[in-house]
Amino acid sequence: MNIMKINLLKNLKFHQFSSRLYGSQNGTPSLIKVYEENLVKTVVLSSPKTRNALSLTMLEELKDNILKYNSNLRCIILKAEGSVFSSGHNLKELTGETGQVYHNKVFESCAELMIGFTKLPFPVLAQVNGVAAAAGCQLVASCDIVIASDKSSFMTPGANFGIFCSTPGIPLVRNVPMKVAADMLLTGLPISASEAFNAGLISAVVPESELEKETKKRIEAICNKSRSVIAVGKELGGQVMVKNINMKDGQEGIRSFIEKKKPVWSHENE
Amino acid sequence: MNIMKINLLKNLKFHQFSSRLYGSQNGTPSLIKVYEENLVKTVVLSSPKTRNALSLTMLEELKDNILKYNSNLRCIILKAEGSVFSSGHNLKELTGETGQVYHNKVFESCAELMIGFTKLPFPVLAQVNGVAAAAGCQLVASCDIVIASDKSSFMTPGANFGIFCSTPGIPLVRNVPMKVAADMLLTGLPISASEAFNAGLISAVVPESELEKETKKRIEAICNKSRSVIAVGKELGGQVMVKNINMKDGQEGIRSFIEKKKPVWSHENE
Amino acid sequence: MNIMKINLLKNLKFHQFSSRLYGSQNGTPSLIKVYEENLVKTVVLSSPKTRNALSLTMLEELKDNILKYNSNLRCIILKAEGSVFSSGHNLKELTGETGQVYHNKVFESCAELMIGFTKLPFPVLAQVNGVAAAAGCQLVASCDIVIASDKSSFMTPGANFGIFCSTPGIPLVRNVPMKVAADMLLTGLPISASEAFNAGLISAVVPESELEKETKKRIEAICNKSRSVIAVGKELGGQVMVKNINMKDGQEGIRSFIEKKKPVWSHENE
Repeated sequence: MNIMKINLLKNLKFHQFSSRLYGSQNGTPSLIKVYEENLVKTVVLSSPKTRNALSLTMLEELKDNILKYNSNLRCIILKAEGSVFSSGHNLKELTGETGQVYHNKVFESCAELMIGFTKLPFPVLAQVNGVAAAAGCQLVASCDIVIASDKSSFMTPGANFGIFCSTPGIPLVRNVPMKVAADMLLTGLPISASEAFNAGLISAVVPESELEKETKKRIEAICNKSRSVIAVGKELGGQVMVKNINMKDGQEGIRSFIEKKKPVWSHENE
Repeated sequence: MNIMKINLLKNLKFHQFSSRLYGSQNGTPSLIKVYEENLVKTVVLSSPKTRNALSLTMLEELKDNILKYNSNLRCIILKAEGSVFSSGHNLKELTGETGQVYHNKVFESCAELMIGFTKLPFPVLAQVNGVAAAAGCQLVASCDIVIASDKSSFMTPGANFGIFCSTPGIPLVRNVPMKVAADMLLTGLPISASEAFNAGLISAVVPESELEKETKKRIEAICNKSRSVIAVGKELGGQVMVKNINMKDGQEGIRSFIEKKKPVWSHENE
Repeated sequence: MNIMKINLLKNLKFHQFSSRLYGSQNGTPSLIKVYEENLVKTVVLSSPKTRNALSLTMLEELKDNILKYNSNLRCIILKAEGSVFSSGHNLKELTGETGQVYHNKVFESCAELMIGFTKLPFPVLAQVNGVAAAAGCQLVASCDIVIASDKSSFMTPGANFGIFCSTPGIPLVRNVPMKVAADMLLTGLPISASEAFNAGLISAVVPESELEKETKKRIEAICNKSRSVIAVGKELGGQVMVKNINMKDGQEGIRSFIEKKKPVWSHENE
């Protein structure tokens, strides 16, 4: 099954959204690009001039295109244009001039986006090929799977700007050992992709030339499975094992394995 | 003290058990081999034809020979014959034909075995030299110490067969970073021994030729200590430190250290 | 800004404290050395003959010089003289002759010291260049950031002396994967600096020749930030992000970043 041809974009359906609430006007270019093929949606941060800053407009566009999904969708890939995956919040939006009400909107939107990932019934895979800083690092840490090139780096330098990376710190400390998190948060110094892999912040690190291949391998692995079973996985915990086995796709999977046939998934929840 | 001669099995007491409840008939070979020397018991998964599947028979045999123990025992080593440490559940036991009552028996037996490890007053050390998949990976993750050869690999591919590895996922997420666990559980792709060591799933990785030596080093280290003190360690937590120091073996250890003599452990609990 | 000249000690203010309560008499040398420059305090374990054992005197001297601090202080560096960073408790203090009341004093003092680190409004950075064993390993694990040379090693060998390293085990299991912690605690075998870094016990490992440089890099990074913002970081958790942004130094940091100027920190808490 030929699931994705990431490098051949000619057949892709492109949607460019203008932001709904706080964003640019209708007609002006949006900050992200979105395309979908074979039930895999790719969302590209496309504002390299702002170093893909997570402005309120950017956050709302991401929410619109990630958290509102076609129920048949199998996976979302999150990528970025330019050498910075994302530099985090747009500091110009966090001055006294914009005011605390606006600041709260930014942080709420950011939290809704990132916490929203955990409630999706399919995985979000980040493909990182550059610097992920502050809330940009939080964005990466909030994805289910992260594949990074060896030229990527990760940092939480908020304290340099007088703002401790408290919010990015939450998924950070849930992902990496305390000694690494404290070092990153208190010094603001970057860690390399290899150090990030060592610490558990990312799922895999590969040379830049293998980034697409490594991503594709995982997307294919996910798409070959039952959507309902993957959704069970995203829920995890609970006493789901026995329920899962008696699901139609649980029995189909076991039968086809025993009979050495390819399973035909119903994608049903029962 | 010459504690183990793993490679010289001639003097060993061999016990081959037929399973008590659901297993093979008396007289037919069992699925595991068990031997004991110098208070160290070795349990070998010996069903390479089924890729050491954790059938109900296998699980019951393991329970009988691990959870029922001589109170003087110092350690259990868990090994496997063949190139697959264990492939996990026997999928033929999880079809509609066997039925949900039987499925529940399998999962209960599996949970009892693996949770049972934590209640033993001595360590269980897994020596892995092959693939540990699904519940086989869970078995490894449930041991106290895991030494693996560099040709080993680890995977939770249940979703391929329509059954998300929820139960194996529990010790997995307690052992490895979320990004690694999610990658393994959602894609079903294997990780190498080196990646498993990086992630914390195993205690050490060595070339196959050094596997016995590395295991032996740890068994000797454990056997040189007081059994009661090791039992305290398995309990961990709690306010055991001061109690421990006033135990007979706590005072014996301190005294012999100060006097530069070899400690003579009483193995008493007070 | 030239923050530290660790290798040029001539201008440093040296304080050698005799222990207040249980320590050596006035006039006799203390077990630690303390000096301060540019609001960075360096505390050196200076009892290589006892392998920097954490005797009650040593613990009390550390408490006096770390937990009682000048409110302007930016960071504490913890170092050690000799090839052993610290061998842990002085076993001669834990015999039946000293008695349980005295043992309790030792353990309380130790816990107060190490838990006290988390309440400091600035980071404690351990610079390790040798063996950290038992409570010495706990001391390292209790620091915020740990930079170690590649000749360092870490172990919790208490069970060898009849005393399971329960207390050192607590920060250990909070820092490293269970499979590593259990291996260390049950066998008492050491892990190398590289294994400790892999496991997350330390923040970085470098050749001995780069230890000072690597430490200095972090101290400079910390001292270039607002003390109040670092204090926010030490608190972490909570809903501190919005509060932080409206702090004087939060606005100063954002403004100076936007205006490409060097921030002038007020170090105020509001």
